[in-house]
Amino acid sequence: MGSKYTIGLDYGTNSVRAIVVDVADGREIGQAVWGYSHGSEGVILGRDPNLARQHPADYVKGAEITIVEALADAGRRRKRFSPGQVIGIGVDTTGSTPIPVDERGRPLAFDKAFAKDPAAMAWLWKDHTAVAEAEEITALAAAKRPEYLAKCGGTYSSEWFFSKILHCLRTAPKVFGAAHLWVECADWIPAMLTGSEAPEDLTVCICAAGHKAMYNDAWGGYPDADFLGRLDPRLAALRGRLKGSAKAVDTAVGGLTDAWARRTGLPAGIPVAAGAFDAHLGAVGSGIAPGTMVKIIGTSTCDMMIAPQTGNLPDIPGLCGIVPGSIVPGYYGLEAGQSAVGDIFNWFVNIIRPAGLDHGQLTRQAARLRPGESGLLALDWNNGNRTILVDQRLTGLLMGQTLHTTPAEIYRALVEATAFGALTIINRFEEYGVKVRQVVNCGGIAQKNPMVMQIYADVTGRPMRIARSTQACALGAAMAAAVAAGPDAGGYRSIPEAQKAMAALKAVAYTPDPAAHRVYRELYALYRRMHDALGTSGADDLRDVMKTLLDIRGRARS
Amino acid sequence: MGSKYTIGLDYGTNSVRAIVVDVADGREIGQAVWGYSHGSEGVILGRDPNLARQHPADYVKGAEITIVEALADAGRRRKRFSPGQVIGIGVDTTGSTPIPVDERGRPLAFDKAFAKDPAAMAWLWKDHTAVAEAEEITALAAAKRPEYLAKCGGTYSSEWFFSKILHCLRTAPKVFGAAHLWVECADWIPAMLTGSEAPEDLTVCICAAGHKAMYNDAWGGYPDADFLGRLDPRLAALRGRLKGSAKAVDTAVGGLTDAWARRTGLPAGIPVAAGAFDAHLGAVGSGIAPGTMVKIIGTSTCDMMIAPQTGNLPDIPGLCGIVPGSIVPGYYGLEAGQSAVGDIFNWFVNIIRPAGLDHGQLTRQAARLRPGESGLLALDWNNGNRTILVDQRLTGLLMGQTLHTTPAEIYRALVEATAFGALTIINRFEEYGVKVRQVVNCGGIAQKNPMVMQIYADVTGRPMRIARSTQACALGAAMAAAVAAGPDAGGYRSIPEAQKAMAALKAVAYTPDPAAHRVYRELYALYRRMHDALGTSGADDLRDVMKTLLDIRGRARS
Repeated sequence: MGSKYTIGLDYGTNSVRAIVVDVADGREIGQAVWGYSHGSEGVILGRDPNLARQHPADYVKGAEITIVEALADAGRRRKRFSPGQVIGIGVDTTGSTPIPVDERGRPLAFDKAFAKDPAAMAWLWKDHTAVAEAEEITALAAAKRPEYLAKCGGTYSSEWFFSKILHCLRTAPKVFGAAHLWVECADWIPAMLTGSEAPEDLTVCICAAGHKAMYNDAWGGYPDADFLGRLDPRLAALRGRLKGSAKAVDTAVGGLTDAWARRTGLPAGIPVAAGAFDAHLGAVGSGIAPGTMVKIIGTSTCDMMIAPQTGNLPDIPGLCGIVPGSIVPGYYGLEAGQSAVGDIFNWFVNIIRPAGLDHGQLTRQAARLRPGESGLLALDWNNGNRTILVDQRLTGLLMGQTLHTTPAEIYRALVEATAFGALTIINRFEEYGVKVRQVVNCGGIAQKNPMVMQIYADVTGRPMRIARSTQACALGAAMAAAVAAGPDAGGYRSIPEAQKAMAALKAVAYTPDPAAHRVYRELYALYRRMHDALGTSGADDLRDVMKTLLDIRGRARS
Repeated sequence: MGSKYTIGLDYGTNSVRAIVVDVADGREIGQAVWGYSHGSEGVILGRDPNLARQHPADYVKGAEITIVEALADAGRRRKRFSPGQVIGIGVDTTGSTPIPVDERGRPLAFDKAFAKDPAAMAWLWKDHTAVAEAEEITALAAAKRPEYLAKCGGTYSSEWFFSKILHCLRTAPKVFGAAHLWVECADWIPAMLTGSEAPEDLTVCICAAGHKAMYNDAWGGYPDADFLGRLDPRLAALRGRLKGSAKAVDTAVGGLTDAWARRTGLPAGIPVAAGAFDAHLGAVGSGIAPGTMVKIIGTSTCDMMIAPQTGNLPDIPGLCGIVPGSIVPGYYGLEAGQSAVGDIFNWFVNIIRPAGLDHGQLTRQAARLRPGESGLLALDWNNGNRTILVDQRLTGLLMGQTLHTTPAEIYRALVEATAFGALTIINRFEEYGVKVRQVVNCGGIAQKNPMVMQIYADVTGRPMRIARSTQACALGAAMAAAVAAGPDAGGYRSIPEAQKAMAALKAVAYTPDPAAHRVYRELYALYRRMHDALGTSGADDLRDVMKTLLDIRGRARS
């Protein structure tokens, strides 16, 4: 039967990427990237700095260009490859990125009447125009439907589905009125490729619906019409048009249309898997499993776990989401995250610009320091705290400075602070019975900065591994495609089966150094005291924090 | 009778300065500076980084060189000036800087046997070798003589007289054994100039004895022999040789010797005033008076007040010292201080080196910010906290950082933190009935940085003035000389009378801006909460600190 391949399509914030993956071993044999043509690096901006939109035309054009180029690249790199060997397509996207569409499922942005109206575009995940609406939804849910909030960390975000729709209703009523439905980007791309955009044919994915739209089978899917109607009667009407049943990534939403087959050279009819968010398919691509956390470290982090749906998992306070099947079917998908990690290091290097040192120089100097030696302690809250405090209105803190504190010491303290934040998330999982035995990291920092990884191991007391693929999200999408295609077509029966064949780790393992771990246990206790004193309700006496830091420093230097 | 002049001799850490001052108006008509020839910039260092000594030979040579050159300078600048018009000499020095001397009052360092022994030199104020002995003295006084500690801020410092002597006794017993007496530099210089070094002739000044050696008439001068004997019996023996009666700066300790008259060209027999520490005579030179605080801002600050001795002044916790007559005779001299001010700004510019900006550039950018705009709050504890916490084991803190925080915002937050520290000292004075109506500042930062002064005015709600003289310490010494000379010789009856004629302020006055002061009142409330939570015993809930910072910032930006 010969080698089989799948395509992973990864829709990011600035560009879309396609990879061609060998189903047998998960190796990437072809790839292509295309930067969106609209806006600034693909993001349409407005006078309001909170506004961030994308033009859906870029999604269409990007699919064609990257699939064609990735297939050509595969042909160059593997002589015997032919597009006819591709058995399926998987898709991951940013989210929540809802798109207003008409009665046929066509984005309003494609209509001349709305061609230049930002409200008719895709509302990109990082659009923050709907802060007031998010607060309104949170308050209503807290009063009337606390169960909704318990599954999404206690706060409904301005980045999410209903906040954006409600903001559109309030501020762009013409667009809202013209929109028959709002469709997540993660749902619209597979629908577009399979000709199933029409509302009656549309498949919605559990990942987006569950994590961003309060969808849960426990209460009959999306929030009920009574709840939405209290926000606005027109939302109750919209509720009637929202799909009743969400699907996981192992489901095919349909077959590739003849038109798309012609445009790309792929076989018509090959299955396209239900979509999911980039981080979630990144977790799949990195080999997420019970006991293995996947941590995607970028400007911020996404920290994911899965837990068997058989057990009775309690609500875990502070998580961004707890959704059955949202990452791997048959398991709860658990999502946590740190609001800023790489962003904090970049702030220090690019804005504070200490002594003109770059990341590499600061890392080399910081790597020579021993844990506790600087006497510094930082909180990783420069962009608020996502998990476990779910509070955007928190800010950074650095303490322990003397008249001799160096830039490299501060850089290391900032790295350590993000490691303490990571441990706080791990501890929260474990407090609720979800064991974290190892962490698989992906993202550029994990790939390139061994010091950061060693500090994470030493702080958390757990081995740090690195995903083999540098394109874990796209790889996860390609795995979903292999499962959607199924074993008869040369694919797999299940996501775990696909992971076993296609996911892998780099050989390097960062294991905790016991002596360093001991020091970090003491520092972490101080971090937690500052964290709790400054981040949670309740009284605390902080007087001995600095003394203990000095004691630890004294011992570290002696 | 013609113009009369006095000489102010100012012994600093690295150099000595002489100025020739017109007694009529306090104007400096001649000056000279000489850098000490021993050690590194005048400071003899050792393998122990805490060690800092000076060679007394530099004091002798420095007096001769600077007096001769200052007189020559005066002759060049004022045609009709002649050294015969000089009616007295005043002296200020660093301290506590005790010198071990033999039975004739001659420094042991002048003896060949000890010529290279650091223990036989002057133990410079910033020598920190006696930390253990200071703790021992503090503990003993807390148990047996709490009244001693109440007058010196609750802690006896490693920088002070008996700590250093006890450390010498323990670590350099030969030197201790050879020392008949220990004499403060502030006492030894006037004695040297007047030939009164011999123990039976020696005059000790109330400033050094009262602030650094627990001297108080209330308990019969120096600490009693029983107390000192508990530290070591040999200290009890030394107690018997310490002088019984300390003098203020309006006292002449004697007349200039013939030998010194020949070396300098000055008239023999002119009075030399009792010495005092640089900061205290700096306060005199800046016009200290009831209600007027003098703040000497350098790497650290010295904050001084005087209060009438008629009232019953309570002990004020956290002050460095409360000594009758130590600044102006007839008034309590009250000394407080901030452990680091200029040092914190220098740390940020010279070690962190943000974006390559210097003080001037950072100041210009920071001056454009409005109070509260940055959302930052800092504690000014990079070098511990002298007043009101008296705790060297405290460190800096910066909070409120976002991903956009700039170097100029941090620079301003550091300036504000030192202003909050200044206000905390002012409040402590007022809590105990010592009103602070205006502040006269001296030192380079006060002279050169209007932004710092305006922030100090806005934070404290009090006008900030600047001393006219850039050499306020030497000017204060010259005033003491005018009083020691007395009205018959063309001088003055009292320090206040001399100040009236000789001290002056610059024309510029920084007055509080009411709107800025309102914002700073809010910020100061947060500073105090962090200050108290992290610096004092007791529980506190800090949760709303950052929220309030963000609220204040939001309003400042709107």
